[in-house]
Amino acid sequence: MFSSQTYKQRRDTLRGMLSGGVALFVGAVEAPANALSNTYRFRQNSNFLYYFGLDMPDLIAVVDVDSGEDIIFGNDLTISDLIWTGPQPTIAELAARVGVGITKPLSELPAYLERARACGRKIHATQPYRAETAATLVALNVCDVPSEELVRASVAMRSIKSAEEVAEMEKACDIGYKMHMKAFEMCREGENERRIVGAIEGIAMQEGWGVSFLSIVSQHGETLHNRNCDGVLQNGRLLLVDAGAEALSNYTSDFTRTMPVSGKFTDKQKDVYNIVLAANNHVFDISRPNMPYRDAHLAATRIILDGMKQLGAVRGNVDDALQAGAAYLFMPHGLGHMMGLDDHDMDELGEMYVGYDAEIQRSEHPSCKACRMARRLQPGMVVSVEPGIYFIPALIDKWRAEGTCKEFINFDVLEGYKDFGGIRLEDDMLITPEGNRMLGRRLPITVEEVEAAMRR
Amino acid sequence: MFSSQTYKQRRDTLRGMLSGGVALFVGAVEAPANALSNTYRFRQNSNFLYYFGLDMPDLIAVVDVDSGEDIIFGNDLTISDLIWTGPQPTIAELAARVGVGITKPLSELPAYLERARACGRKIHATQPYRAETAATLVALNVCDVPSEELVRASVAMRSIKSAEEVAEMEKACDIGYKMHMKAFEMCREGENERRIVGAIEGIAMQEGWGVSFLSIVSQHGETLHNRNCDGVLQNGRLLLVDAGAEALSNYTSDFTRTMPVSGKFTDKQKDVYNIVLAANNHVFDISRPNMPYRDAHLAATRIILDGMKQLGAVRGNVDDALQAGAAYLFMPHGLGHMMGLDDHDMDELGEMYVGYDAEIQRSEHPSCKACRMARRLQPGMVVSVEPGIYFIPALIDKWRAEGTCKEFINFDVLEGYKDFGGIRLEDDMLITPEGNRMLGRRLPITVEEVEAAMRR
Repeated sequence: MFSSQTYKQRRDTLRGMLSGGVALFVGAVEAPANALSNTYRFRQNSNFLYYFGLDMPDLIAVVDVDSGEDIIFGNDLTISDLIWTGPQPTIAELAARVGVGITKPLSELPAYLERARACGRKIHATQPYRAETAATLVALNVCDVPSEELVRASVAMRSIKSAEEVAEMEKACDIGYKMHMKAFEMCREGENERRIVGAIEGIAMQEGWGVSFLSIVSQHGETLHNRNCDGVLQNGRLLLVDAGAEALSNYTSDFTRTMPVSGKFTDKQKDVYNIVLAANNHVFDISRPNMPYRDAHLAATRIILDGMKQLGAVRGNVDDALQAGAAYLFMPHGLGHMMGLDDHDMDELGEMYVGYDAEIQRSEHPSCKACRMARRLQPGMVVSVEPGIYFIPALIDKWRAEGTCKEFINFDVLEGYKDFGGIRLEDDMLITPEGNRMLGRRLPITVEEVEAAMRR
Repeated sequence: MFSSQTYKQRRDTLRGMLSGGVALFVGAVEAPANALSNTYRFRQNSNFLYYFGLDMPDLIAVVDVDSGEDIIFGNDLTISDLIWTGPQPTIAELAARVGVGITKPLSELPAYLERARACGRKIHATQPYRAETAATLVALNVCDVPSEELVRASVAMRSIKSAEEVAEMEKACDIGYKMHMKAFEMCREGENERRIVGAIEGIAMQEGWGVSFLSIVSQHGETLHNRNCDGVLQNGRLLLVDAGAEALSNYTSDFTRTMPVSGKFTDKQKDVYNIVLAANNHVFDISRPNMPYRDAHLAATRIILDGMKQLGAVRGNVDDALQAGAAYLFMPHGLGHMMGLDDHDMDELGEMYVGYDAEIQRSEHPSCKACRMARRLQPGMVVSVEPGIYFIPALIDKWRAEGTCKEFINFDVLEGYKDFGGIRLEDDMLITPEGNRMLGRRLPITVEEVEAAMRR
């Protein structure tokens, strides 16, 4: 948690960006796993965390734009609660930690909002992602969500990370580093994917809040969000590990490495690997303020197409192939996403506001339809850089059958890659006034570094 | 997952217990953590698992009591899903694994239920614990929940574990054993509670599905559900570790041990510890089919009062103190809970059906108002055995101020225990035709065993 001043300033800045009314922040409630009483680890709503900092359930807060007041609504614990929770600070004490001087019981919230509405003032809220929050908004008669004004202001503010936010992200990177080094250490024939997941997610919990997303640990890297994790590692296969942590402040890291189970890449693996590595490195070479991140997506996918041409899987003019959308066959996802208090930062506020703006809008052009973070980079933004090459048998077959990009793809060559899997290499990038810098210590990434990290 | 025959038999048995209509089983959807797209680890609804066995989101199933049909409603994946998920079996293939021959897309469910209702047939469903499920039930026009008939039938069936269910619980116990042995190993001055949580929860994920509930690792064992886990271990304190795992089948274990951070109990700690141990052992001595588990609660709390009398904190006649509810000051929770596919098994169906029945109803009598599992034991039941002694300063002060049980409690003596913390010792018990047996290998529990487990 930052100083009370930090939160107060954020709310004052927000107030200055809204035309009027009341901005409502519904904090998360506990998330039941298999019963009301058996919950997942509590995860606060990120927008609530950003403006109100308090990391506990059952709080709702408002920023009153017109009066200048901030109020936290919450109920103090009773003596019978205390048996289960131990002594806890009061809501007023908690509120003081984040610079809020007014607190009220939750029962007073409906009347408060009713009064604001009666004066013709707008209630701003964001789109709920959990049905409990949706029900709360309905109960509070807040139906006109999301408030585009609140969303745009939140995105504008949260997109630019302060030095203290970057420091928290570097803590998350340190944890992510340990997680991945453990994966390098454990990756060997006969080991189980699930055991690696448990080991690295345990590290995320030991050192921070836990994982920033469910870890992907799979010999089927071509399956982008593989959650099976049931495989037994086999020499000859590649293992893709995409995992990150949240610091105790909930700021995130997100790294991907791909490693040969045997500890040594084959020549064929090395060839594809080095294309992905070149794409990753190139993005760091070119990214700087004011560059649309879509350009980095295009530059990375161009390297991938060029590399696959060297391997005979792509033919013809690479720029034409890029324009035709041929890269989607190898990398059917965007180059990266915004990062911060969420792994995919501000996803709850809507990708169309986070990754796009009035100038750079979502495009269905074949060359960048997979790109999700497209707008111009600014100093203080943190984005993931995660090019990949995947050989997805179902997609290859579909394109072949439909003749998609057939003038640019050599499907016969691709037949020989159908059991290859996939490679992704992901680092986290802070945009600086001068250009960019990588967050955290870089994990082993060259062929030599990876093989050295796996040597035992 | 068990054989398709197992699930088919369960559904046929259920059909025989319901008077008619359609029993509806709404499987879980993914649970968003901080965005729709960033979810917690998927946890299937346990009643769905019990009758339909499939461990994936977005399935709804029905047991048609009148026609004898079982149907699974779910949508097959599209090619664009497959890029993210990899090749997956069809709904029909999945259904066949659990003995269901009829599958339909989810879009056909509303009309199916409408037809049943039009014929005057009842739709049975259980109480939702997640708002997403509640919204689904509303959308399906299923308002009359819970169906007491379905709840009673489910509880009756799920209360009695088959041999194959017990075998799964023993797998969960094996994982729990490893988790707790790791905690014994890590517990030492200067270590952080959170690091132990991470280490043991990592083991739960490495070996099974994950934890059966959020681990409690605390030097403030007197706080019954302490989730802070921020403490640094200090010599002289006791560390309470309450943790368990779910096997991959989601069957659970749940153990508690309490250990001296220094590796050696003080005499004062040993005295209290041995009272709790005696209570735990006594429950295994007396528990057998047909005994109300409330009697075990009373017997355990009587041992606690008797022990505290030896230590001077209780005075007068122990049976009178028991009847007056004096034990609640030391152990303000029940002796145990049913276990199975949930840690607190069937909590979603309602404690009043799981822990009580027509004969043994919930009581506000001071001696057993905290008792939650009270009804008669039957062979095949699995219950936790978890007596404890806690010194909760807020509760001691409240009782003293209000004069509660003042003729039985020596509050002056208790002043000397206000910084003691709490002790709980928990094992898992299967009721057998002959009596009972402990599930899994027993963790170190005597003073000597615990000190030996911590020796390094």
